[in-house]
Amino acid sequence: MLTQNFEKLLDIGIALSSIHDLDELLDIILSEAQLLTNADSGSIYLVKGNRLIFKTSRSNTYFKKWGEAKTREIFRSFEMPITKESIAGYVALTAKTLNIPDVGNLPSDSEFRYNATIDKKYGYATVSMLVVPMLNRERKIIGVLQLINSMEGEKVIPFTEEHQRITSSFSSQAAVSIQNAELTKELKNANLDTIFKLSAAAEFRDKETSNHIKRVSHYARLISQKLNYSKEEIELLFWAVPMHDIGKLGIPDCILQKPGILTPEERKIMEQHCVIGAVVLKDSTAEVLKKSKIVALTHHEKYDGTGYPMGLSGKEIPIEGRIVAIVDVYDALSSKRCYKEPFPEEKVISILEEGRGKHFDPDILDIFLMNMNEANKIRESYQDTDKDFDKYVGLTNINLSDLLK
Amino acid sequence: MLTQNFEKLLDIGIALSSIHDLDELLDIILSEAQLLTNADSGSIYLVKGNRLIFKTSRSNTYFKKWGEAKTREIFRSFEMPITKESIAGYVALTAKTLNIPDVGNLPSDSEFRYNATIDKKYGYATVSMLVVPMLNRERKIIGVLQLINSMEGEKVIPFTEEHQRITSSFSSQAAVSIQNAELTKELKNANLDTIFKLSAAAEFRDKETSNHIKRVSHYARLISQKLNYSKEEIELLFWAVPMHDIGKLGIPDCILQKPGILTPEERKIMEQHCVIGAVVLKDSTAEVLKKSKIVALTHHEKYDGTGYPMGLSGKEIPIEGRIVAIVDVYDALSSKRCYKEPFPEEKVISILEEGRGKHFDPDILDIFLMNMNEANKIRESYQDTDKDFDKYVGLTNINLSDLLK
Repeated sequence: MLTQNFEKLLDIGIALSSIHDLDELLDIILSEAQLLTNADSGSIYLVKGNRLIFKTSRSNTYFKKWGEAKTREIFRSFEMPITKESIAGYVALTAKTLNIPDVGNLPSDSEFRYNATIDKKYGYATVSMLVVPMLNRERKIIGVLQLINSMEGEKVIPFTEEHQRITSSFSSQAAVSIQNAELTKELKNANLDTIFKLSAAAEFRDKETSNHIKRVSHYARLISQKLNYSKEEIELLFWAVPMHDIGKLGIPDCILQKPGILTPEERKIMEQHCVIGAVVLKDSTAEVLKKSKIVALTHHEKYDGTGYPMGLSGKEIPIEGRIVAIVDVYDALSSKRCYKEPFPEEKVISILEEGRGKHFDPDILDIFLMNMNEANKIRESYQDTDKDFDKYVGLTNINLSDLLK
Repeated sequence: MLTQNFEKLLDIGIALSSIHDLDELLDIILSEAQLLTNADSGSIYLVKGNRLIFKTSRSNTYFKKWGEAKTREIFRSFEMPITKESIAGYVALTAKTLNIPDVGNLPSDSEFRYNATIDKKYGYATVSMLVVPMLNRERKIIGVLQLINSMEGEKVIPFTEEHQRITSSFSSQAAVSIQNAELTKELKNANLDTIFKLSAAAEFRDKETSNHIKRVSHYARLISQKLNYSKEEIELLFWAVPMHDIGKLGIPDCILQKPGILTPEERKIMEQHCVIGAVVLKDSTAEVLKKSKIVALTHHEKYDGTGYPMGLSGKEIPIEGRIVAIVDVYDALSSKRCYKEPFPEEKVISILEEGRGKHFDPDILDIFLMNMNEANKIRESYQDTDKDFDKYVGLTNINLSDLLK
C-alpha cells in the first residue's frame, strides 16, 4: 500500500476516535470509505446478537436525485437475520471480504445472491461491490461495511486490490471507534437510567409516578431546543431536571402527604425542599449535578420576585429555574393527580397566561405555548396509567423470583 | 517515513483506542514510544489548567536495578507549574518538539535548562532527549511525552530524525486516546457521584449520613477484592451497593422513624423495603442497576433461611446479598447511631461470629474478619461527624447565594 494512503489512514483514525456520537460516526466512516475507494454508494450494518442492523447509507446518485434528507427517509434502519444468502449476511457469518466485479454475473455455485429489489424499485444499477467485515480487536465481527460501484469518471469499474487492502485496514480502525462510541452511549444511558430510577423513587412518597419526572424532563428539553441550546446543553438540562424535587426527601410525611392546606409553619418547612435539594447535590464536579443543583434551588422562584427560597426576580433567576417553573406547573395542571382530573387544554393555557410576567418568564412562556403540539405528544407518550401506580402499591402480586433474575 | 512504521502505527492506534483505563493507557503509550525509538527511559506529563502533572514513567535501567514496583514508588505523580525553564514546561508552552543530542551540552543561550537533581540522586546519566508535545484534534496541548537515551546496544545515541517524525505522529494518536480515556473516566465519575448523592438523599429520612453508604460500599469492595473478582465486577458491586436501601422511600415516616420496637404489622411493612427497592430498580438494561436490584432484594436474607423477603438459604442467596448482609450489620455495630455509641471491635467481632452460618455466610465472614485492618482504615476515612449531620439539619446557616454558583 502506498505510504500516502497510510498517512491518510492515520489521520482518519485520529478523526474517528474523536467522534463519540454513534450516528455521526457511522456517517463519517461511510463517507471516508467512499472517498478511499471512489464508491458511489455504501451502507453500514451492525451486528446485534444474531441479527444484522442496517444503520446508515450514503449514495452520491441518490443524494443528487433526491437530496440527503429524502434518501435517508427512504433507506431507514431495518433489521434482518444473519444468513449466508444475503451478501452482508455472508460477510458477517464468514468474516470474508467479498470483492465482486459484477453482481449481475455471480457464478452459478455462489453461496450468496444479490437481491435487486431495491435497485429495481428506485432505478439504481448496482454493479461492483466491496463488502468488508468490521472486526474488533478480539477479531469478533461487529459490523459489515458495504461499498457499491467504484467510479472512474462516469464509468463503474470493479474495486481494485488496493481498494480492498486499504478498506480492510480502515475497517479495523472504524470498528474500534464504533465500539468506543457504543461504550460511551452505554455509560450515558446507565447514568440517565440511574437518574430517572432514583429520582422516581424519591417521588414515591409524594405519590407521583415516575412519568411525572419524565414528562417534565421532556418539556424542559423541548424548550431548550427551541431556545437553540447546543446539543450538550440540551442533554445536560434533560438529565438535570429529574432531580429537581430530590429535597422533598427531607420533608416529613406529615407535611408532604397532608391532605388540604398547610399551615404557614408547615408551608415554611415544605419550602425548604429547594434548599435541601441544593445542599444534597452540591460539591460535585459532575456537570449534570451542578446543573441539577441550580434547578433544585430555583424552580420555585417567581418572575416578579414573590417566589422562594431566595425571592429572586426576572433574569436574576437562572434560566433553568425559569424553564422548570413553567413545565412543572404545566404538568401539574395537565395531568391527573389524586385530588383532580387533568384540566382541559384551554384552561391549562389560560392559567399559564395569568402567570405571565408574574410567576413565569414571558419569553419562555411564549416559546412553550407556541409548541403545545409537541408538548401534547410528550404527554401522550408518558401517560400515567393506574397500572403504573399499582406497580408500587400492588406489591403482593409480585413474583419475587422474577425480580431475582 | 517507512511504510512498515506506518503500518505499526496503525496497529498501535487501534490498540490504544481499545484501552479505557487512563493509567494503563499511559503506561502502554510510554512503552510503545520506547520501542519505537529504542529509548531507555521516558515519562508522560499531562496538562491540567496551568499545571503540568507528572503521571507515569518507565525506565529499563531502573526496572532492572530496582524492579517495576520500587521504581514506580520512587517516581510518583507530582505537579509543577508550566514554565519555560523546565524542558517539559518549555514544550508544553511552545508546542515545539525538542530533540536534544546531549542535555549536558545545551547552548548557553538556551531558554530551558536540564535539571540533573534526580539523575544525581539515583545515579542515572541522561544524555539524549526527545520531548514531544501531545496535541489533540483542536491542536491544544494535552500533555508532553518525554523520551530519554536512545540506545544502540549499550551506547547512548541521539534520537534520529526518523524517531522524531514517528513519535510526533504517534503522539497525536496517543493524545486522542488519552482524551477518550478521560471522557470515559468523567462519565463514570458522574455516574458514581449521582448514585452516591441520590442514595445519600434517600437515607435522609432514616437519619443516616451519606457516609454510611460510602462505608458499606467500600467494605463490600474490600470483600470482592479478596474474593478475586475481576476489576469490572468489583466496580459494579461498589456502584450497586449504595442503592441497597432505596426502597425505604416507600416506607412511611411513622414506621421508618419510630423509636423503639415495631409491632409485627409494622415490621411486615418495614420488610417490604427490599421488594420496593427491587421493583423501583428493575427493568433497566444498565448493569449497575441490575446488580443493585439484586442487592436491594436480598441483603436481608439469612444464611439459615430465616431472613426476608424470600427466605432463601445458603448459596441460594446471591453472593452480593450475602456480602452486603455482613457489611451492613458490621457498619451498624461499628459506627455511632442516634441511639448508641460505636461498639468496641471485640464486641463487633463477637456479634458477627455469633451470626456465622446463621445470619452470615461463614466463608465470606472469614474473609471479612481476616481483613479487619483494612476495614478499620475505611471506617476512619469515612467517619460520621456531627458536622456532617448538621449539614442537613442546620439549613438556616446556609448562604443561598453560594449554592447558586
